[in-house]
Amino acid sequence: MSESPDVFAKFETELEVRPDDIDLYQHVHSTRYLDYVLAARFIQMERDYGMSMRDFAERGLGWFMTQSNVHYKRPLGLGDRMVVRCGIEHFTASGCRVAFEIDRLPQRKRSCDGFCDYALIDLKTNRAVPVPADIRGKYSI
Amino acid sequence: MSESPDVFAKFETELEVRPDDIDLYQHVHSTRYLDYVLAARFIQMERDYGMSMRDFAERGLGWFMTQSNVHYKRPLGLGDRMVVRCGIEHFTASGCRVAFEIDRLPQRKRSCDGFCDYALIDLKTNRAVPVPADIRGKYSI
Amino acid sequence: MSESPDVFAKFETELEVRPDDIDLYQHVHSTRYLDYVLAARFIQMERDYGMSMRDFAERGLGWFMTQSNVHYKRPLGLGDRMVVRCGIEHFTASGCRVAFEIDRLPQRKRSCDGFCDYALIDLKTNRAVPVPADIRGKYSI
Amino acid sequence: MSESPDVFAKFETELEVRPDDIDLYQHVHSTRYLDYVLAARFIQMERDYGMSMRDFAERGLGWFMTQSNVHYKRPLGLGDRMVVRCGIEHFTASGCRVAFEIDRLPQRKRSCDGFCDYALIDLKTNRAVPVPADIRGKYSI
Repeated sequence: MSESPDVFAKFETELEVRPDDIDLYQHVHSTRYLDYVLAARFIQMERDYGMSMRDFAERGLGWFMTQSNVHYKRPLGLGDRMVVRCGIEHFTASGCRVAFEIDRLPQRKRSCDGFCDYALIDLKTNRAVPVPADIRGKYSI
Repeated sequence: MSESPDVFAKFETELEVRPDDIDLYQHVHSTRYLDYVLAARFIQMERDYGMSMRDFAERGLGWFMTQSNVHYKRPLGLGDRMVVRCGIEHFTASGCRVAFEIDRLPQRKRSCDGFCDYALIDLKTNRAVPVPADIRGKYSI
Repeated sequence: MSESPDVFAKFETELEVRPDDIDLYQHVHSTRYLDYVLAARFIQMERDYGMSMRDFAERGLGWFMTQSNVHYKRPLGLGDRMVVRCGIEHFTASGCRVAFEIDRLPQRKRSCDGFCDYALIDLKTNRAVPVPADIRGKYSI
Repeated sequence: MSESPDVFAKFETELEVRPDDIDLYQHVHSTRYLDYVLAARFIQMERDYGMSMRDFAERGLGWFMTQSNVHYKRPLGLGDRMVVRCGIEHFTASGCRVAFEIDRLPQRKRSCDGFCDYALIDLKTNRAVPVPADIRGKYSI
């Protein structure tokens, strides 16, 4: 454990609001922000950590969300572009907490932030398993 | 083929608009009407035909949409209830056309109608297969 | 403030999973649970509190989510029915916290629970406003 | 009418599948393809035609879909990128038909194609209105 850094890297992905994300208040529907985080995270797992969701599935593993927390600051609207910044906050025995921030472009004003807790799951048993050392290594950057 | 009826039964399912279906024009988003048809169809397959999507999957089969056509007449709005009426219009060698109508309740004014073409797929090969006689029997009511 | 009860009423609404809620893991997509809460809440505002979202809009007011927190326990799947239980946990100067629980039917096993914080917004200025006494009265049951 | 070209320009927009677009069959959910078309169209209206949905709204006008038709050829999957090609096929008195094709990148194999019919709507009356000459001009490229 002593080799793990105390602070982990954050990665950024730019996304754009889709018209079907807009709700009756003319803003991005509140539940879609986590979908942006998820989309950014999938891209970053492959591009930045070198181990994609598909790679996990091929080892019989999946990440299941156990908790989500979102603070909504300023809503995004039609046609807005954003940057989604994600990084691991800490590991637990069988998972990790991913913190995120979504900033509206181009001014990078905070739209929302929060975190998601994940458990690593054996897809055959649907039960949480300890994070293997090699995976923890790949994600401890 | 001569035992098949020329006209097949239609079945009705009542559904309610969810707030997340509403779009920036304060109406149900245009792509959600087919989701209502799909929801009604899943219910009717189990309740009215006695062979659910899960039963198809257990035989290694799935229904894939090959064409959809929707005529939009009157939009549904927040809190609206509807009846979704579906029925097989005709069979093809490896599929069928399902016609649908969505009427707004309680006045039953037409909101939209159209059809979906489906192909029966072998889930292992992802290829269309002829509709087995017993399935065609179950669905020829 | 002294007339307000310490514990507020909880209300229940039954809903059913739609096929388009299912994600690549064959379960309800994690962000849809809050959509179920929102759907239940809209129904309960009209049916149980006697003041619907539409009534708020007619007074130039809207509820904006400022924080959401969800603990995911057991995923829902295709065709599942659920009961969504919601109630106000406490009021703040310009809003309230709504706690929720989603239980799978018919056994009522917990699927997820959590809370949403809302701010009452003047729809013209998009700014938070104090909760008017008559509204606080209607919702303090 | 004689100044209008017989064949109108087609424009391309690249998009990427989001994880929340994937359904229980591990493919993009059938109703999401039209959402990709809509997203591409909104971008193209602003970027290529020089008159965005917002510009229409400021003139009290909106485009309502009256018919959609989609032929599904090859499903898109998790992480796929696509190009969405759209163009006006013809004008009607109060609207137009937009044809589209979605090709999977990088091989540009056809995923689906089809068309959407739109009516131009006066947002105050919710009724179809003739397409004004200047708008028809801007879009006749």
